[in-house]
Amino acid sequence: MNEGTFVAALRALAGDPAARGLEDDAAVLEFGGESLVLTHDTLVQGVHVREDEDPADIAWKLVAVNLSDLAAKGAEPVGVLVSHMLGEGDERFLTGLGEILTAYDVPLLGGDTVRIDGARSWGCTAIGLATHTPVPDRRGAQVGDAVYVTGVLGRAMLGLEDRGSGSANDLAYRRPRPLLAEGRMLAPVVTAMMDVSDGLLLDCWRLVKASRCTIELERDSIPVADPARADDCIRWGDDYQLLFTAPVDAPLPVPSACIGRVAEDGGHELWIDNEIVTPEDGLGYQH
Amino acid sequence: MNEGTFVAALRALAGDPAARGLEDDAAVLEFGGESLVLTHDTLVQGVHVREDEDPADIAWKLVAVNLSDLAAKGAEPVGVLVSHMLGEGDERFLTGLGEILTAYDVPLLGGDTVRIDGARSWGCTAIGLATHTPVPDRRGAQVGDAVYVTGVLGRAMLGLEDRGSGSANDLAYRRPRPLLAEGRMLAPVVTAMMDVSDGLLLDCWRLVKASRCTIELERDSIPVADPARADDCIRWGDDYQLLFTAPVDAPLPVPSACIGRVAEDGGHELWIDNEIVTPEDGLGYQH
Repeated sequence: MNEGTFVAALRALAGDPAARGLEDDAAVLEFGGESLVLTHDTLVQGVHVREDEDPADIAWKLVAVNLSDLAAKGAEPVGVLVSHMLGEGDERFLTGLGEILTAYDVPLLGGDTVRIDGARSWGCTAIGLATHTPVPDRRGAQVGDAVYVTGVLGRAMLGLEDRGSGSANDLAYRRPRPLLAEGRMLAPVVTAMMDVSDGLLLDCWRLVKASRCTIELERDSIPVADPARADDCIRWGDDYQLLFTAPVDAPLPVPSACIGRVAEDGGHELWIDNEIVTPEDGLGYQH
Repeated sequence: MNEGTFVAALRALAGDPAARGLEDDAAVLEFGGESLVLTHDTLVQGVHVREDEDPADIAWKLVAVNLSDLAAKGAEPVGVLVSHMLGEGDERFLTGLGEILTAYDVPLLGGDTVRIDGARSWGCTAIGLATHTPVPDRRGAQVGDAVYVTGVLGRAMLGLEDRGSGSANDLAYRRPRPLLAEGRMLAPVVTAMMDVSDGLLLDCWRLVKASRCTIELERDSIPVADPARADDCIRWGDDYQLLFTAPVDAPLPVPSACIGRVAEDGGHELWIDNEIVTPEDGLGYQH
């Protein structure tokens, strides 16, 4: 079964509003006046991480991608649960895990460990507390809004080619920084927000589908790490920048580039300059 | 690295009290007057589930083992996040998932899907609300308490041998029932509680270590599915009964067998009749 079919079936099982965590990066639960944000992501050896990846980098990335989902909700991390498959490099895994938990002051709440033969995978559930309600999601983009992205896209792509060098790009790939502070500052301003994990175009297309809007991007406005390879930079994942929509006149608390606008309601399509783009064109990293 | 060393290192990373989820089956978080219970378990093909297992049974078991952890906390399920590896039998997986979510009226909140080659694994995070505080854990057994277990041990073991027959034992193996109602009724009464997932002896030994107590079990008092194979029944996992300690005179709201007592403080050991047992003796299912 392909992922789309499976997720659609899951969504039918879940029903709305519980299904938010399936079309979004995180689920939101209301408790005693607080909005709790929950997210789960799995990294698989050979799919999301290279076979020869340093386990310390795997641990960092595992937690970082989940914290990035919290960032896109403007949530403050409460803690993480980590599911680990024992094997080569467990000491390094623990080192990297300790590093990211310390860097973002996030408690480790629990998890489980198993041992298998073959490809390993690692899971993480992150729990956060929303700092602003309504909690931003992908569904709120409004006609007339501007579309923004924080930071520069393509650094992780260049970092992969430069792996182990210790360069800024290398670190962008191996040690992505979840934009928690930025997400919290943006939450009161945005109409929709998500993180860019699978490439700007693919994630922007997902925003279009969730918000049932049409977005027109301007290619030259998108900040890319290597202008000669702009097409790759906007299709490559792992950058974990924040993509959001906001009213055109809203003052932004975080430096961001305006890369397009939400157009008059068309066919819920993604345009870049005067071209329509669809997943069949290879928008980004689908897994 | 072996699991014990790894978990000890994780615990050092976590610090207390956040570490509760690592030596316990679940983490407890306080929010706006509520106690939220979080648990995560992974099932791995070839380790926790057979290669030829019906994916509907895998989905059932995946959710059931996590709900069983909530049961041992006396918690009411709020929802689950499911991490699925796409592959053979996805339709059956969805069927089983739908069945258990319906059976226990548990919302699916989210999750993720990935595709890999090789051994598959499935993760589930369950979230619950405690119905009684303090939330029971493994650490509260008191000298003089009686030790109890609900139900009969070894049914899942017999069910594995009888797999696919549709017998009660077969269902005990394929479709374990998390004892949520029983756990909620017991929570106000118990001094310590956990579910029996890896065999009575091993789990009882874990209770001993967490409570820093000594437990003396009476072999003949332990209800087993096949008395001729009692030794196997008390070492085999997958039964998901509740193991708990309570004052000897406490009236029990759930039928349970008294299987031993918490002895005067000795060396934090587990005794069965007049024999001391340790993990080196093969207490149960370690993975």
